[in-house]
Amino acid sequence: MFTFGKPRAKLHYSLVYLVMKLGARHIFYFKQHLHGIYVRLVGSVEPRIVDSVGEGVTHLKPGDHVLPVFTGECGNCRHCKSKESNMCDLLRINTDRGVMLSDGKTRFSINGKPIYHFVGTSTFSEYTVAHVGSVAKINPAAPLDKVCILSCGISTGLGATLNVAKPTKGSTVAIFGLGAVGLAAAEGARIAGASRIIGVDLNPNRFEEAKKFGCTEFVNPKDHNKPVQEVLAEMTDGGVDRSVECTGNINTMISAFECVHDGWGVAVLVGVPNRDDAFKTRPVNFLNERTLKGTFFGNYKPRSDLPSVVEKYMNKELELEKFITHQVAFRDINKAFDYMLAGEGIRCIIRMDA
Amino acid sequence: MFTFGKPRAKLHYSLVYLVMKLGARHIFYFKQHLHGIYVRLVGSVEPRIVDSVGEGVTHLKPGDHVLPVFTGECGNCRHCKSKESNMCDLLRINTDRGVMLSDGKTRFSINGKPIYHFVGTSTFSEYTVAHVGSVAKINPAAPLDKVCILSCGISTGLGATLNVAKPTKGSTVAIFGLGAVGLAAAEGARIAGASRIIGVDLNPNRFEEAKKFGCTEFVNPKDHNKPVQEVLAEMTDGGVDRSVECTGNINTMISAFECVHDGWGVAVLVGVPNRDDAFKTRPVNFLNERTLKGTFFGNYKPRSDLPSVVEKYMNKELELEKFITHQVAFRDINKAFDYMLAGEGIRCIIRMDA
Repeated sequence: MFTFGKPRAKLHYSLVYLVMKLGARHIFYFKQHLHGIYVRLVGSVEPRIVDSVGEGVTHLKPGDHVLPVFTGECGNCRHCKSKESNMCDLLRINTDRGVMLSDGKTRFSINGKPIYHFVGTSTFSEYTVAHVGSVAKINPAAPLDKVCILSCGISTGLGATLNVAKPTKGSTVAIFGLGAVGLAAAEGARIAGASRIIGVDLNPNRFEEAKKFGCTEFVNPKDHNKPVQEVLAEMTDGGVDRSVECTGNINTMISAFECVHDGWGVAVLVGVPNRDDAFKTRPVNFLNERTLKGTFFGNYKPRSDLPSVVEKYMNKELELEKFITHQVAFRDINKAFDYMLAGEGIRCIIRMDA
Repeated sequence: MFTFGKPRAKLHYSLVYLVMKLGARHIFYFKQHLHGIYVRLVGSVEPRIVDSVGEGVTHLKPGDHVLPVFTGECGNCRHCKSKESNMCDLLRINTDRGVMLSDGKTRFSINGKPIYHFVGTSTFSEYTVAHVGSVAKINPAAPLDKVCILSCGISTGLGATLNVAKPTKGSTVAIFGLGAVGLAAAEGARIAGASRIIGVDLNPNRFEEAKKFGCTEFVNPKDHNKPVQEVLAEMTDGGVDRSVECTGNINTMISAFECVHDGWGVAVLVGVPNRDDAFKTRPVNFLNERTLKGTFFGNYKPRSDLPSVVEKYMNKELELEKFITHQVAFRDINKAFDYMLAGEGIRCIIRMDA
């Protein structure tokens, strides 16, 4: 089966890496690469326990619990040094680089043939080798079969609301798209103390589930013969205070922007659009003091910020169990994809040991 | 000539008004209403000294020095109560309402025929009547023939940078359009301690003047055969930290947004576009953590915030003299318009007493 290359010596600080050993249970993390656009997540690898570290790795040691993250944090670039960005120049998500940065080689092989890394984590594997900047050390008391889902979409939605939209207590928030990311965005609005959380989705089956995540009202654009931004403006005396767009549909993005209130409204784009889409609106919508922002991984810096998100779960502020609707054994991994493609459930945990 | 109706009794708090007496020198404030779009300012009325107040006006008294402002602050609406907005529901700029709010009547007449108010201030007049929410009480020691220019465009540009773009010390700021508002935006960047302030204008004659306002570099889009956002990205290793758009040209707006750095860049739209323009960009520009905001009157709440802007001038942080390039007597008011239409100078003060 798989074999691993030896961890290599440190070449310079940003090129150290470590070998992590999966514990008793293993959960998969996957991004389907389709037409150049990432479309969905299935789950996250868990638990990751550091097995050994390369030379020069000082802040991690064997036995540490970590979350591998698809986009890293080198700690040294302009983005890592900026308070505002998490888009690390060195370790920002890269789907084309299937090798380690230090030597351009892979650490996996099968029957002598190379197997390439994927998005810096390569977590469909009992052991993996990752750049030290791609793993976040977390509280060892955290149950890894729960917090593993913070490695991607859940943090993305949560952070879009908490770090970027920043609703104040008592405010009104619209969430466009009630998939996993949208539900995590709603969870963020619930944690922030929003008094009205309006879920918008074309699938009414989502609404019952979304109540668990704080949604108080629902709008199905199909039920109205006017643009959904007008429906929302009427429901909220002029517009919502914040909106978070989690579908990637370009028209939904425009609606999410145009439905925020003038003077103070902030819309946050999370969903990934088609490459050729054009965002189009009347500029007066900006001049009336609306703000439009985009976010990537909820603006969380993986190493610096994820430990505190884990703590939010530990102190019961953040509820993660409700996101985990399925668990399957590794041998049944294709079932996880079937669930995803059928739109069933939210997050599926894949267990290596089952 | 003009006669004034008597100040009327207070009907309720938000409908009180006051009569202001112009002092020895008078400066005009004008917005040219052209095709429904405000195009330029000439100057500001100054000084305004309160002559009498209506019943219920408690925070102003005869003798107070005030700045009349084209957009008001009632203090009671959702916008006034929001920390984020200055777009007062009651007194937001309204060019169609030529009468007092309390009774729907004008306070001016000439030979018995009504003369209508303009944008809540009606400052082409020795005496005027304004809603109490449309005047800001300021430090009586401030020279009114200087701080009068804070009633509109100068605060608009200054606030766009200081209140909305919020560049940090040492950052790089691009200013699109080096008219009065753009120069005020540059002045804001200078005050904020930006290390590079890049002025962008099609008219190279602007560049020498702009140096006085902190501009360190200049780009004329005509000098390049690629989009100006690409030129700026090359000059700044990926994009500027902040940009402020002060032209109202839709393509310039798009350039101003697309020239900011991913991860942390913020673009602020100030210029007023044509009604039918469409702002158009690829949504990935947002998802790479860029922010686009619009502003109105620099996000200053007139009554709450203008006194502190006057103090910035008093403590020599803000330089106003350099904005005042002309002064004319009232009888020569048309010269002021000629200067404006010819693009000569920045602000022209019109003196009633000259």
